[in-house]
Amino acid sequence: MNAPIGVFDSGVGGLTVAREIMRQLPEESMIYFGDTARVPYGTKSKDTIVRYSRQIVNFLLSKGVKAVVIACNTASALALADLQELYNVPIIGMVQPGAIAAMNATKNKNIGIIGTNATIKSGQYGQYLRKLDPSVTVVTKACPLFVPLVEEGLIDDRITEDMVSRYLREFKQYDIDSLILGCTHYPLLINPIQRFVGDKVTLVNPAYEVAKTLKQMLAQRDMAASEDHTAKYEYYVSDMADQFLSFADKVLPCRVDQVQPVDIENY
Amino acid sequence: MNAPIGVFDSGVGGLTVAREIMRQLPEESMIYFGDTARVPYGTKSKDTIVRYSRQIVNFLLSKGVKAVVIACNTASALALADLQELYNVPIIGMVQPGAIAAMNATKNKNIGIIGTNATIKSGQYGQYLRKLDPSVTVVTKACPLFVPLVEEGLIDDRITEDMVSRYLREFKQYDIDSLILGCTHYPLLINPIQRFVGDKVTLVNPAYEVAKTLKQMLAQRDMAASEDHTAKYEYYVSDMADQFLSFADKVLPCRVDQVQPVDIENY
Repeated sequence: MNAPIGVFDSGVGGLTVAREIMRQLPEESMIYFGDTARVPYGTKSKDTIVRYSRQIVNFLLSKGVKAVVIACNTASALALADLQELYNVPIIGMVQPGAIAAMNATKNKNIGIIGTNATIKSGQYGQYLRKLDPSVTVVTKACPLFVPLVEEGLIDDRITEDMVSRYLREFKQYDIDSLILGCTHYPLLINPIQRFVGDKVTLVNPAYEVAKTLKQMLAQRDMAASEDHTAKYEYYVSDMADQFLSFADKVLPCRVDQVQPVDIENY
Repeated sequence: MNAPIGVFDSGVGGLTVAREIMRQLPEESMIYFGDTARVPYGTKSKDTIVRYSRQIVNFLLSKGVKAVVIACNTASALALADLQELYNVPIIGMVQPGAIAAMNATKNKNIGIIGTNATIKSGQYGQYLRKLDPSVTVVTKACPLFVPLVEEGLIDDRITEDMVSRYLREFKQYDIDSLILGCTHYPLLINPIQRFVGDKVTLVNPAYEVAKTLKQMLAQRDMAASEDHTAKYEYYVSDMADQFLSFADKVLPCRVDQVQPVDIENY
């Protein structure tokens, strides 16, 4: 089955997941959608996030995708279950693979999670982790300023260092040995976060495990593209196509020629 | 004419304008809409802001408003002209009154403007100021982190002081004597901004002038409510009604009992 994989995010962050899928599944075509008109999702209610995610899945299905990856932690935490009930196509989120990656990384079973307000409030990461191992200790913290700081380009900056230390200070008393970066923007802050938490804490980026889960799922269901298939990538956004294009060109290994606008409210 | 005034903003910021209208026009009823599902507008394109603003004006008209106030600088800067062409109802934005207030405040005709990326990029404030007085010198700066900082509650904080000094540093070399707070969130940062720019710079909040312009317009067109009319206020949002209610209760002089959700994409 050489049909494309549909990948979506509230904006550009999901491109870090798309990149990992391109690396691990080079023969799979991909349709990427970034909801740049309605970004961010991390401050919205479950109802709104489910409604927006449904419109996006409808759009991706209209493009003939064989599976959907929710490359956004907030939409994964709040909309995955609803979407899986509504659609027949297989849908993979970030949270379950992220939790598996954290269980693989931890030795002392004290796991930290950072994410948007909506992701942290949903408690989804904690639920999955406890399903995998009920004896795990989970410590969570919402970091709402991280996304605006990344988007303002303040990566290695004293203001970002200051916010990292404020948000992550509490983790110090819990002896965590792994920290889930539960928002696709956060891997861009790996340097200041690692400096603050120290080398003994493993930073867990769910993207790698998401691509691995996708690969396994496609193999199990006999849905993988043929080995000699040449992958094609298409990019769609709900707003600001030019800005998306310049960002995508920086993040992705292959040249992005075109980003097409979509009137997503009509889906 | 005792029909209500429609007031809208991308979220909660416009409540500072609503408050000023309540103060100056206590007999006018009001329908407030906050687009809390799709906030912020400051990072969106003109096309998207116009489309969203049209949906909102359609909604307000369905509630029988006699006039509309765009209580959002970004929507005013990017959508006012389009909306005025499309609708017969009088529509007032923030930019023209804000420019008038700045001209009244300045003595040396060196005026600074801060706002969102979209507002600053539009150049609308500068255009209006030059229309009022072609000899004016205009210095502008987008301050995209101010809104997230206010929403994170970091008002009197060293991080906010730091960002204020970074964004406003350039103004020091231009000898400005008045600074337009071109975003409804910014009046909440009056203290750190005034400390940095010094007492010789007047901070201009367009809200006062917007209410004054509205009052004049209603009088001229014989559309004002009767003097003995008891004003009624209704509040609508596209998401997160509870959060809006608790914020509105802090900002407004009267108790807010109810905030109603609206599926704004259907208008």
